[in-house]
Amino acid sequence: MMENEWMDEIAVLVDETRDVIVCSVDDDGCPNAKAMFKMEHEGLKVFYFSTNTSARRTQQFLKCPKASLYFCGHEQVNGLMLVGDMQVCQDHENKARLWREGSEIYYPLGVDDPDYSVLKFTARSGNYYHALQKHSFTVE
Amino acid sequence: MMENEWMDEIAVLVDETRDVIVCSVDDDGCPNAKAMFKMEHEGLKVFYFSTNTSARRTQQFLKCPKASLYFCGHEQVNGLMLVGDMQVCQDHENKARLWREGSEIYYPLGVDDPDYSVLKFTARSGNYYHALQKHSFTVE
Repeated sequence: MMENEWMDEIAVLVDETRDVIVCSVDDDGCPNAKAMFKMEHEGLKVFYFSTNTSARRTQQFLKCPKASLYFCGHEQVNGLMLVGDMQVCQDHENKARLWREGSEIYYPLGVDDPDYSVLKFTARSGNYYHALQKHSFTVE
Repeated sequence: MMENEWMDEIAVLVDETRDVIVCSVDDDGCPNAKAMFKMEHEGLKVFYFSTNTSARRTQQFLKCPKASLYFCGHEQVNGLMLVGDMQVCQDHENKARLWREGSEIYYPLGVDDPDYSVLKFTARSGNYYHALQKHSFTVE
């Protein structure tokens, strides 16, 4: 496949994925994973997630920002891993950006609830698998 | 929910999951993830996967056996993480156990192809999420 065909296929997978697998490293150095709802993203470079500050995963990222995202295709045998860093954002702008109707169920004190954080993932590189083919790339 | 209701729900999720997200740690200490076909398992304690010895993930587990598996529910908002260790098995018995019709596409030299390995995951603990509820447990 040509580079642009790979990237088109990857863009479709990212668009169609509702739940992204967010991976962190725990205190014992073990990889951890949890599905999180994909809220907003800028291409393949930046992804935003809404979470509780007190959540175990948030605390892990505060200690160690090393992260990856995994997008799992269900129809075909394909998958995308993006590797990068996860920043825990507490600023009003990022928190307002992801605030939705119903968010108060999770964060009863509103947008500035200290138990509400935004996880901002920035990708460095990616690996895409489709059947037996592989495509590795850097994310500019 | 009662303990046995949780475990029943978890067993259904594991049964219905075709592709398990297998998480490792790379040379930079970053979490990595890849979907792998669930081949055989013994309850929640042991899971087996077939893979190339030369595959990046196999090489990561040879250096660092820390691993987790993630089972992502698609209908409901539920997910299971199992944390444990991944052993790379090269013995004939384990390799014969996972050999299937068509395996020669991946491992042309047959069951004893040195580029064929079995990944054997043994769980220590689990975390199950369903909507806003969480259930943590040890795996005996």
